[in-house]
Amino acid sequence: MTYTLVLLRHGESEWNAKNLFTGWVDVALSEKGVEEAKRGGELLKEAGILPDVVHTSLLRRAITTANLALDAADRHWIPVKRSWRLNERHYGALQGKDKKQTLEEFGEEQFMLWRRSYDVPPPAIEKGSEFSQDADPRYAGEPEVLTECLKDVLEREMPYWESDIIPDLKAGKTVLVAAHGNSIRAIEKYLDEISDEDIAGLNIPTGIPVVYELDENFKPIVKGGTYLDPDAAAAAVAAVANQGR
Amino acid sequence: MTYTLVLLRHGESEWNAKNLFTGWVDVALSEKGVEEAKRGGELLKEAGILPDVVHTSLLRRAITTANLALDAADRHWIPVKRSWRLNERHYGALQGKDKKQTLEEFGEEQFMLWRRSYDVPPPAIEKGSEFSQDADPRYAGEPEVLTECLKDVLEREMPYWESDIIPDLKAGKTVLVAAHGNSIRAIEKYLDEISDEDIAGLNIPTGIPVVYELDENFKPIVKGGTYLDPDAAAAAVAAVANQGR
Repeated sequence: MTYTLVLLRHGESEWNAKNLFTGWVDVALSEKGVEEAKRGGELLKEAGILPDVVHTSLLRRAITTANLALDAADRHWIPVKRSWRLNERHYGALQGKDKKQTLEEFGEEQFMLWRRSYDVPPPAIEKGSEFSQDADPRYAGEPEVLTECLKDVLEREMPYWESDIIPDLKAGKTVLVAAHGNSIRAIEKYLDEISDEDIAGLNIPTGIPVVYELDENFKPIVKGGTYLDPDAAAAAVAAVANQGR
Repeated sequence: MTYTLVLLRHGESEWNAKNLFTGWVDVALSEKGVEEAKRGGELLKEAGILPDVVHTSLLRRAITTANLALDAADRHWIPVKRSWRLNERHYGALQGKDKKQTLEEFGEEQFMLWRRSYDVPPPAIEKGSEFSQDADPRYAGEPEVLTECLKDVLEREMPYWESDIIPDLKAGKTVLVAAHGNSIRAIEKYLDEISDEDIAGLNIPTGIPVVYELDENFKPIVKGGTYLDPDAAAAAVAAVANQGR
């Protein structure tokens, strides 16, 4: 008995295209992102990997990606579950800031620490400020989040992994998780047992499904899983790694 | 204590535009239908009627309508539930047939009996034929449906009303049901206590939300509810009533 998990990072967003830190700011997909999402669904259909259930974050770019990809794969009708625990990392006071300007203002070392260190969060965002979500009704009743490092993402994601994703896998369902660069990095860190240091080097391509076959202990049979379009994935990873340059 | 229920018929589909009987055939929205769906969401946003949960059928035209309307209303992140019990009426052997040709072939009386009688279903569709859903994985494990009259729709819809919609209303949620001409007619027949004869005259406009405030017994405070754009609703109803002419 093996289990099938598919991870899909949303297509390019309007702020990816503008090179701004996004985090929990609820921006839409760019036109390119829309096409990436549809292509992601076509890849699933071609491979015959048909999700039985989809889990998304509460952010528009992941939700739209799931909607478009599933429509392209003729699986628009499957059950949907959503949770803030699959959200992108909250980028704190950096939300809304230009990546290149931030790099120039704070220098390479601080920039890379905020972007890629495992346990150093950016400064907290000011409550009530333009790009804060503290008054957003979708997070009412949930723990307050004002900034996060990747460790924080992993820690808030794992309860959902246990409570919602594992049970769907156990039921024999092919599970699609449509989420974000850092919420997917956190899942892969856990699954592939990547060290706190090595996780800095892991970049996730947009819009290309990666398929993990998991064993009876929900551990990957092949570390890193299998991208459905490996050449495009490698090219996209290189592009992500160069953001802010 | 009152409860808020919003009913939304999907925007124009590719087959509405071609004047074909659709039923359970899973066609997409037309470009006009996409615009109608977005407009439906804008009407909800303008009225401040913000769904807390959405229920859809398993058909693409209702699912896409819900996705687009909720995105336009900034409520894309709410929980989603889907059921075949909210599907359009199964049109049996008429699925895929031209409405005007069917009218000419069978005559006005038979045509209107199939379209609008409460309890006369069209002939059953042949299993395995082009427009049958008997092998569709989304209906695996559900009762076999090969044709339906409106009475059949009401009877398969009510268990879902009781098991899934009423509990969400009871929890104080504003509930959006994104569905179809006949699955919405059945709900309105039940809510407004419309007779088996009078239901023939009820037509549902596409893409315009109707809001029902329900009392403690889940009965409408205003019969027929309130359309968010009454002029457009009246014009759309007239257009639906003239289909096949």
